[in-house]
Amino acid sequence: MSPRLRHLTTLENLPRATIERLLDRAEALRDACAHGTRKLNVLAGRTVLNLFFEPSTRTRTSFELAARRLGADVVNFDLGFSSTSKGEEMYDTLHTLEAMHLDAIVVRHKQSGTPDALVRHAMSGVSVVNAGDGNRAHPTQGLLDALTIRQHRPDFENLRVVICGDIKHSRVARSDVHALSALGVKEIRLCGPAGLMPEEDEFPHGLRFDDFDQAIANVDAVIMLRLQKERMDSIELPDEAAYFARYGLDQHRLGLAAKGCLVMHPGPINRGIEIASDVADGAQSRILEQVGNGVFVRMAVLDEVLAR
Amino acid sequence: MSPRLRHLTTLENLPRATIERLLDRAEALRDACAHGTRKLNVLAGRTVLNLFFEPSTRTRTSFELAARRLGADVVNFDLGFSSTSKGEEMYDTLHTLEAMHLDAIVVRHKQSGTPDALVRHAMSGVSVVNAGDGNRAHPTQGLLDALTIRQHRPDFENLRVVICGDIKHSRVARSDVHALSALGVKEIRLCGPAGLMPEEDEFPHGLRFDDFDQAIANVDAVIMLRLQKERMDSIELPDEAAYFARYGLDQHRLGLAAKGCLVMHPGPINRGIEIASDVADGAQSRILEQVGNGVFVRMAVLDEVLAR
Amino acid sequence: MSPRLRHLTTLENLPRATIERLLDRAEALRDACAHGTRKLNVLAGRTVLNLFFEPSTRTRTSFELAARRLGADVVNFDLGFSSTSKGEEMYDTLHTLEAMHLDAIVVRHKQSGTPDALVRHAMSGVSVVNAGDGNRAHPTQGLLDALTIRQHRPDFENLRVVICGDIKHSRVARSDVHALSALGVKEIRLCGPAGLMPEEDEFPHGLRFDDFDQAIANVDAVIMLRLQKERMDSIELPDEAAYFARYGLDQHRLGLAAKGCLVMHPGPINRGIEIASDVADGAQSRILEQVGNGVFVRMAVLDEVLAR
Repeated sequence: MSPRLRHLTTLENLPRATIERLLDRAEALRDACAHGTRKLNVLAGRTVLNLFFEPSTRTRTSFELAARRLGADVVNFDLGFSSTSKGEEMYDTLHTLEAMHLDAIVVRHKQSGTPDALVRHAMSGVSVVNAGDGNRAHPTQGLLDALTIRQHRPDFENLRVVICGDIKHSRVARSDVHALSALGVKEIRLCGPAGLMPEEDEFPHGLRFDDFDQAIANVDAVIMLRLQKERMDSIELPDEAAYFARYGLDQHRLGLAAKGCLVMHPGPINRGIEIASDVADGAQSRILEQVGNGVFVRMAVLDEVLAR
Repeated sequence: MSPRLRHLTTLENLPRATIERLLDRAEALRDACAHGTRKLNVLAGRTVLNLFFEPSTRTRTSFELAARRLGADVVNFDLGFSSTSKGEEMYDTLHTLEAMHLDAIVVRHKQSGTPDALVRHAMSGVSVVNAGDGNRAHPTQGLLDALTIRQHRPDFENLRVVICGDIKHSRVARSDVHALSALGVKEIRLCGPAGLMPEEDEFPHGLRFDDFDQAIANVDAVIMLRLQKERMDSIELPDEAAYFARYGLDQHRLGLAAKGCLVMHPGPINRGIEIASDVADGAQSRILEQVGNGVFVRMAVLDEVLAR
Repeated sequence: MSPRLRHLTTLENLPRATIERLLDRAEALRDACAHGTRKLNVLAGRTVLNLFFEPSTRTRTSFELAARRLGADVVNFDLGFSSTSKGEEMYDTLHTLEAMHLDAIVVRHKQSGTPDALVRHAMSGVSVVNAGDGNRAHPTQGLLDALTIRQHRPDFENLRVVICGDIKHSRVARSDVHALSALGVKEIRLCGPAGLMPEEDEFPHGLRFDDFDQAIANVDAVIMLRLQKERMDSIELPDEAAYFARYGLDQHRLGLAAKGCLVMHPGPINRGIEIASDVADGAQSRILEQVGNGVFVRMAVLDEVLAR
């Protein structure tokens, strides 16, 4: 059995068995919820701190619900873009919070690597869970995307998945690739305009495409990404209409994919820029299932790192 | 027995029996609290989301306390005046939140009709409770005002009530009229400067007054309204001293009302503009009783819409 | 036995027995926590409101954790620098909150005396706890500093303590002096630049120093203060490098103190201005113990004022 995680900062290099244990646990929690069990007490007496240096009400709410449904107390510590967002001041804040006897810190930060820096500086028994750092990792998103695909297509060894859009700035894309590779997905395709593609050597096993029509052909799942305008140089900003024409997901393009292809997006969606409204709201869309799975995956992760 | 409500967006056209059931339930909760029962567990495992597109710490706190005292978890989702406050983006936010398995959404929005739009767009079993939309409805305020009056004067068929001030922009006035009409109040008077009065045909049974001295004569309850400056055109803004002289409630005017006339205001009060300080703090003031009843009414409403 | 407190607004004139009871209670809670008891239910059904007119995420979080770990519900009411921060509007807010059946209000305000004004205006059974008012009092900080010293040096009658820095604007200094005097500390020294020292007659028993090297000689604990720039006139603002040279705590100066001298600071620290990093992070630093004790002291205070 793979050892229990004490922190979760990235899915990179995580053993397949660990990822599968987290997905299995999330699935069990989803089943329990479907049968009416909304609240467990396994983390009663524990305190989870949401430490968000980047505002994100959706993700914070998902973590908050996850922690509460396990019986934990939750404290929100929204720092916005305050001066305490880096360096020694941040570690002083960390140590101050640790000294209050917290059990887990859920952190989001625009600087890649911040969660690992917190792990290195953490002194006591506190667990760190990454809720998104820069363009590097968003591990619970990677897990929930894998869970959503597995729910419909557990035969990962047969699957083709395309990830399309602003891959360069996307922590979601990175965590998706890590999760899906570890779980043995047959083919992972990466598609986007040249300026928004990652370095050639970053994903050696990913097939690179410039043309979305070619990239989507016969895939079993398409993961559309949000344009991360706040992380772009002005020169990287695409014209929205031109972008949609070439890289937007509409019904025509979806028709090129395999029958029943799953349509996914981490949200919030930009309708008419990344995805056509009728596709986002269509029968093949799994976007809201992703959101629902997000709470269960986060419950599984908190349970993993905090269980005694 | 009138059917159980699944949502509460307005009191308009609500059966008298439904309103009375809610008031009876609120009263029972108030009695239980007076005997020391501060917390119930009837909504344990349920999650209530406060979705406030207009800031209102008072009302949000009242709903938050109500939900917690029934044992529910509460998540606050303050959106302020962010870009997600209308149209498709708002429905995407709604669906995202629904997908997290929420049980009720308490919504406040400056746009009239938003709670009903949420009800129409809601897909799952989530209940919507209106915490105030534009100038249209504030149903829990209407209920708490009715409860406050009933506590002192249950003989609604004998009562004269005057509502005075900025009726045009007041969702409180609208919900008060709906509640008090349904409960059979004998006479409802509406008083305010011409520019702040509603359309002639909006309240066919309301008696319209321009002169507050005439309007207050012999009434059993006077409900003063807050000037909703943020909803006024510049031309509608009254001179405050002149407004108080004509439409402010002072001891002299209160003396024209029936003996023991109840003094009410939804708060926050503007002392010296809508109401004199000695009247607001005087023996006939029920303003703080209204606040206390607000929590019990909101408990009753959440219990109504969420009970299995 | 000293009578139970209903409010805690200042430590000034509090009997020694009362302070010792609070410290003993905090110590018992700390011991229980060390043995795994993180959560008690003694305040189940009670509601604590954090009413912060000055933002302070650290102190608010400490009070929030303290209240939750006693089983109370917590509502945060952050008013920032809104217009409701003084006078009648503030009392109206107080009365509105009281009418919602709160049990305790934890208040922070930049105006000295606000907590006492709330006590005078409070109508019902609500308890007021001061979380810092102007430059006047921060009683839970005074208690947690005393607890931290007692933990290591319970022989108060032998102790020399120096408080150094911006004493003039420091509510921490005032509450520390009140606590340590009441507990019988042998010698309390006050040190700072002339412009940041209190009036001559404010602390008749405090020994005044201008020279930090002299002030720190042979002391058993040194309490460094934060420069309260937001409370200073522009003329009071010191040059930071010059300030550190004369009043900063570095290893050399710490060497002048008694062996094992405790190093304390209420935080957040300004490294290189009030205290050198190697001292703040050094073996003699008790800064994080102070933070940990803060939660236990606040639990003890809430338990004291709310116990039935």
